[in-house]
Amino acid sequence: MSVNSFGRLFRFTTWGESHGPAIGAVVDGCPPGLAIDESAIQPFLDARRPGQSKFTTQRQEPDQVRILSGVFEGQDGVRRTTGTPISLMIENVDQRSKDYSDVAKAYRPGHADYAYDAKYGFRDYRGGGRSSARETASRVAAGGVARLVVPEVTILAYVSEIGGDAINMANFDAAEIGNNPFFCPDPEAAKRWETIVDKARKAGSSVGAVVECVATGVPAGWGAPLYGKLDADLAAAMMGINAVKGVEIGDGFAAARLTGEQNADPMRPGTNGPAFDANHAGGIAGGISTGQPVVVRVAFKPTSSILTPQPTVTREGEATELFTKGRHDPCVGIRGVPVVEAMMALVLADHKLLHRGQCG
Amino acid sequence: MSVNSFGRLFRFTTWGESHGPAIGAVVDGCPPGLAIDESAIQPFLDARRPGQSKFTTQRQEPDQVRILSGVFEGQDGVRRTTGTPISLMIENVDQRSKDYSDVAKAYRPGHADYAYDAKYGFRDYRGGGRSSARETASRVAAGGVARLVVPEVTILAYVSEIGGDAINMANFDAAEIGNNPFFCPDPEAAKRWETIVDKARKAGSSVGAVVECVATGVPAGWGAPLYGKLDADLAAAMMGINAVKGVEIGDGFAAARLTGEQNADPMRPGTNGPAFDANHAGGIAGGISTGQPVVVRVAFKPTSSILTPQPTVTREGEATELFTKGRHDPCVGIRGVPVVEAMMALVLADHKLLHRGQCG
Amino acid sequence: MSVNSFGRLFRFTTWGESHGPAIGAVVDGCPPGLAIDESAIQPFLDARRPGQSKFTTQRQEPDQVRILSGVFEGQDGVRRTTGTPISLMIENVDQRSKDYSDVAKAYRPGHADYAYDAKYGFRDYRGGGRSSARETASRVAAGGVARLVVPEVTILAYVSEIGGDAINMANFDAAEIGNNPFFCPDPEAAKRWETIVDKARKAGSSVGAVVECVATGVPAGWGAPLYGKLDADLAAAMMGINAVKGVEIGDGFAAARLTGEQNADPMRPGTNGPAFDANHAGGIAGGISTGQPVVVRVAFKPTSSILTPQPTVTREGEATELFTKGRHDPCVGIRGVPVVEAMMALVLADHKLLHRGQCG
Amino acid sequence: MSVNSFGRLFRFTTWGESHGPAIGAVVDGCPPGLAIDESAIQPFLDARRPGQSKFTTQRQEPDQVRILSGVFEGQDGVRRTTGTPISLMIENVDQRSKDYSDVAKAYRPGHADYAYDAKYGFRDYRGGGRSSARETASRVAAGGVARLVVPEVTILAYVSEIGGDAINMANFDAAEIGNNPFFCPDPEAAKRWETIVDKARKAGSSVGAVVECVATGVPAGWGAPLYGKLDADLAAAMMGINAVKGVEIGDGFAAARLTGEQNADPMRPGTNGPAFDANHAGGIAGGISTGQPVVVRVAFKPTSSILTPQPTVTREGEATELFTKGRHDPCVGIRGVPVVEAMMALVLADHKLLHRGQCG
Repeated sequence: MSVNSFGRLFRFTTWGESHGPAIGAVVDGCPPGLAIDESAIQPFLDARRPGQSKFTTQRQEPDQVRILSGVFEGQDGVRRTTGTPISLMIENVDQRSKDYSDVAKAYRPGHADYAYDAKYGFRDYRGGGRSSARETASRVAAGGVARLVVPEVTILAYVSEIGGDAINMANFDAAEIGNNPFFCPDPEAAKRWETIVDKARKAGSSVGAVVECVATGVPAGWGAPLYGKLDADLAAAMMGINAVKGVEIGDGFAAARLTGEQNADPMRPGTNGPAFDANHAGGIAGGISTGQPVVVRVAFKPTSSILTPQPTVTREGEATELFTKGRHDPCVGIRGVPVVEAMMALVLADHKLLHRGQCG
Repeated sequence: MSVNSFGRLFRFTTWGESHGPAIGAVVDGCPPGLAIDESAIQPFLDARRPGQSKFTTQRQEPDQVRILSGVFEGQDGVRRTTGTPISLMIENVDQRSKDYSDVAKAYRPGHADYAYDAKYGFRDYRGGGRSSARETASRVAAGGVARLVVPEVTILAYVSEIGGDAINMANFDAAEIGNNPFFCPDPEAAKRWETIVDKARKAGSSVGAVVECVATGVPAGWGAPLYGKLDADLAAAMMGINAVKGVEIGDGFAAARLTGEQNADPMRPGTNGPAFDANHAGGIAGGISTGQPVVVRVAFKPTSSILTPQPTVTREGEATELFTKGRHDPCVGIRGVPVVEAMMALVLADHKLLHRGQCG
Repeated sequence: MSVNSFGRLFRFTTWGESHGPAIGAVVDGCPPGLAIDESAIQPFLDARRPGQSKFTTQRQEPDQVRILSGVFEGQDGVRRTTGTPISLMIENVDQRSKDYSDVAKAYRPGHADYAYDAKYGFRDYRGGGRSSARETASRVAAGGVARLVVPEVTILAYVSEIGGDAINMANFDAAEIGNNPFFCPDPEAAKRWETIVDKARKAGSSVGAVVECVATGVPAGWGAPLYGKLDADLAAAMMGINAVKGVEIGDGFAAARLTGEQNADPMRPGTNGPAFDANHAGGIAGGISTGQPVVVRVAFKPTSSILTPQPTVTREGEATELFTKGRHDPCVGIRGVPVVEAMMALVLADHKLLHRGQCG
Repeated sequence: MSVNSFGRLFRFTTWGESHGPAIGAVVDGCPPGLAIDESAIQPFLDARRPGQSKFTTQRQEPDQVRILSGVFEGQDGVRRTTGTPISLMIENVDQRSKDYSDVAKAYRPGHADYAYDAKYGFRDYRGGGRSSARETASRVAAGGVARLVVPEVTILAYVSEIGGDAINMANFDAAEIGNNPFFCPDPEAAKRWETIVDKARKAGSSVGAVVECVATGVPAGWGAPLYGKLDADLAAAMMGINAVKGVEIGDGFAAARLTGEQNADPMRPGTNGPAFDANHAGGIAGGISTGQPVVVRVAFKPTSSILTPQPTVTREGEATELFTKGRHDPCVGIRGVPVVEAMMALVLADHKLLHRGQCG
């Protein structure tokens, strides 16, 4: 019932704090025989890595992943998974613990400081400890393994909105996503966001973002009704990412404003199962994939770490003010993109194995 | 890994189909010694029961729950939980299987028919079988037990929007919720909704809805980071309800449009832990409750069953048209209210026990 | 984390007490499309049914199982599993609650009375409540479903020893097992046991027994190292049966007295994988099946319910004496045979699905 | 459903192979605030460490454990658990991979080689890979953490029998256990075992052993009927240890040869709950602890690695002979003692938290 694990058959457990010696993940349930190497995982960590532009935290972490178990070099010289647990480790390099002395005494508003203290009574306050977004590097590494399990699926996430300024879908160009520091598929929006995020950064403020993720190639039939539904698992996966406050599948809240006719996804004969005229459902019906693209939308709140002092209380319950001195992202949603992709991969890998195990 | 179970320590498993002889739930992990009786559960089932107004399906189900195990009448004549599994059963009375003959041959668009067939290859098509919203009666019954575990918490859900028409929070009156067939806290909105829903009903159409749920009295410290977070569990719980396509905690997607300053929840000294100046976070930080009200918002799509014929395909892959002849809710979100409340209770009961087990 | 559930992918949850209105099981994870009917399950319940000879309890229970969900009659008129939870219910008919009035006040030695009170503080004392061997009927019913999942496997259990008197393997005849009230494969031993058990019965005493179970047809490769090993799961499954105090795989404790050479299971080329010269390992190596017969041996203590008064204490902690007035088995191991078979089937079904889900 | 994890609330996951760079465990669910340090864990690893006498394998591993997460030095300078996952790592130092070249081609009888290949189709054959007893170092490390959770319990294991030669309980002296290389509480038996094990070692043979483990101080009420029973969990924990073939609770198989009167554990008024006249039950009734010492007995087969060539088959199915060249324990049961203790601690820690979470 491990609360630091996620998944059923393809299951990962993460460990580590922002300012400990290392962080990592143990991936259990990966099928044997898959070609794997650090180089299969590193690119996803690189995409998430901090300090790559002025729009993200300046903490410098190489985020080099090491595979400590679960792989073996076969006679053909290719390293492959063996079906045993894959232990992934990433060393923490650039911790500056001195930045967090104030946080030992008082609770940062919007952060998990008070909640952790209420739960545990004792906490590693350096950089948020376990609640730091640094932990998401472990998920991204685990997600790199998950992608190997679902080679039939293509996962693409991008930022669709920053500070209330949305992309224009008419400008959508997947090739643009890697060309700007915002994972933005609309080059015009990317330009506007430079101003928005830079302004927030200079003011010591922060802005929120919306990330969309589309998985194509998911066959019909993945999902485990009624309490392991594909959409419910995706909702948990995404809502569990740091700073996320909302999750939508397909049309999401907009569907609540449609009529049954407007929301219908009519079917026609297709080449491989039915062809659909629309995808309001976001590729999932009754908790099971329909063969259409799986579409998820995730809302990230603005980073809670801001320079404007906020009223708060000390551990002793006295009034004080606090502002956050450390290095932080002015828009935490940006680096959420590789994390959202990783969680999508992890959920799909799990459901692929579940489907294989239960049926037929 | 049971996919028809939900929860960790307080865990329920549901069974049953729309047109089988009965449906039910087994609740495992309920602490012993709690006074319980069918009368503690029945009111919640009555609230969800179909056929009570012209705005819901006309299927007539008494939905009388029976407790088959896990309780015992002590020497004081009070029936109490014994700590062993509580088996709850509800008989199906008003099945009309003949309504569903067409569905055996072709897939209803927007329904789970095709997805279930892709997954299982064999399905009980009568009334949607297991994917029918009838199953939610089992959750509501289990939720009635869960409420006994968290007597310190008050759970209130209501419809905040139907067909795109939202309530005016200035008119909010909790006492009104039971006075109209829409669980609407705004009497003016309730009047408007009569027209909206009646129009949809008469046209054989349907409309979507948004349900809000607020839990007050949740102490700080409930939640299990990082993969059993309170918000992630609530997201899974709500997204797993039939017809739900979106979940928000606190400000949800609106938070993505705020700055860090606007989204802050400053703290001041309070009588029992900090007092908060705002609740953008919806009572949860870092996946753990903060002591503020826990606020969830849930989007229900319009009922997929509509009278307008829709293009679809047969099991053999040929083009056809289908409209839904059975009895259905013109706005499935309305009867979602007791289900949302039940899922809130079930998640909170589980996290209360988890908190008790792991800490101190 | 449900503690009243067993299994991972093929998972069942039982509910019910000795003197409640009914008992039952919910089987989750059964693959779809398997032909099933009450008649596929009933024979196993009949084998376990009490009151069939003077050597078992005289409680008269028809133990008629009802399938309440998860099956559907296809167009060919055959009822099949649908992949959704299968709810099985057995009504309790012959409860005589008046027999247990003493037990409300004092703890029966050897029974779970005191332990349950220490754990729960409140208990259904009638017939042992949840701790009664009556619950094993639910397992046997669930096991009937499990057998349908592993048709390639033949499971055979029998009593190999009663009151210290063992069968002679030279006399072993599987066809004899059904010809005596002891599930005894050695007709000579069966005759001796009549005397042994009858003597115990008349004296109000009881005797222990050893049950052996052999599963043939299990292919190599089932098992999930390292903490879901096939032998570890079998050990848990068997040790969890009422009155069981020991479990052996293959040679068990006798292997501890062998040398490495004596204990070796040499392999030679075979038709379908290796052929083995011996099976000291009981068909499992490293927690994974080897293709040889899976062999388990289970020790049942003598029934704790005896007529000789035993010193004990009341709930208030005062000294008293107690003897058991109810109807009981003089040798509870006998009726353990169908339960051991059921648990074997349940574990194997689970591991078959696990193997299918994780590999390839 | 992670198959490389064990436990429910107090749960650990192990990773690593015999010849990989490192092995380790992630411990999840440890309560916060417990004083902890590498020095709290290291002594148990030292007890299990190979190469300490001529009676165990000569592989030289320092087995230094590192804590990588989940602890924090509080203001009082004491490192304490924070309630977050505790990552434990042990580097592999003395791998000699060249010893295992034969094993790549053919299956060692009695080992998991063939079974792993049947399951995974691809394996790390060096030193048995994941199936090596080396992995038990991870369990022992995790067990060191578990002990901190149950300070009220004293756990003592010892070898009670080697090669069929049992200790004399009249000679039992707990203080002697650390005075010989066999964890033997009977100094006379220890002397005899020197001859037995040395003879086996010189002959390239091996002998089996029985390990007993007694946990005193376990309060009444721990255990989770019916499928998380304390005895069932102990059975799984012990049967899952490498080379184990049998598990007994209390009198075990001997109980099957007693009458109900002989097997009774009569109770009398005691100072803290009932006092018992005997402990045939081994401290567990109905799957729940009774307050008496919890007694487990575990049978270890003789090490399968022997110098006498055995008939076996190659991966291609051809006949061959194999003997084991690597460094091995002539009696693997000896070093099983710290592993049995660790598993006892791990099961008890889990049940303590479970009891706390579910009741009251």
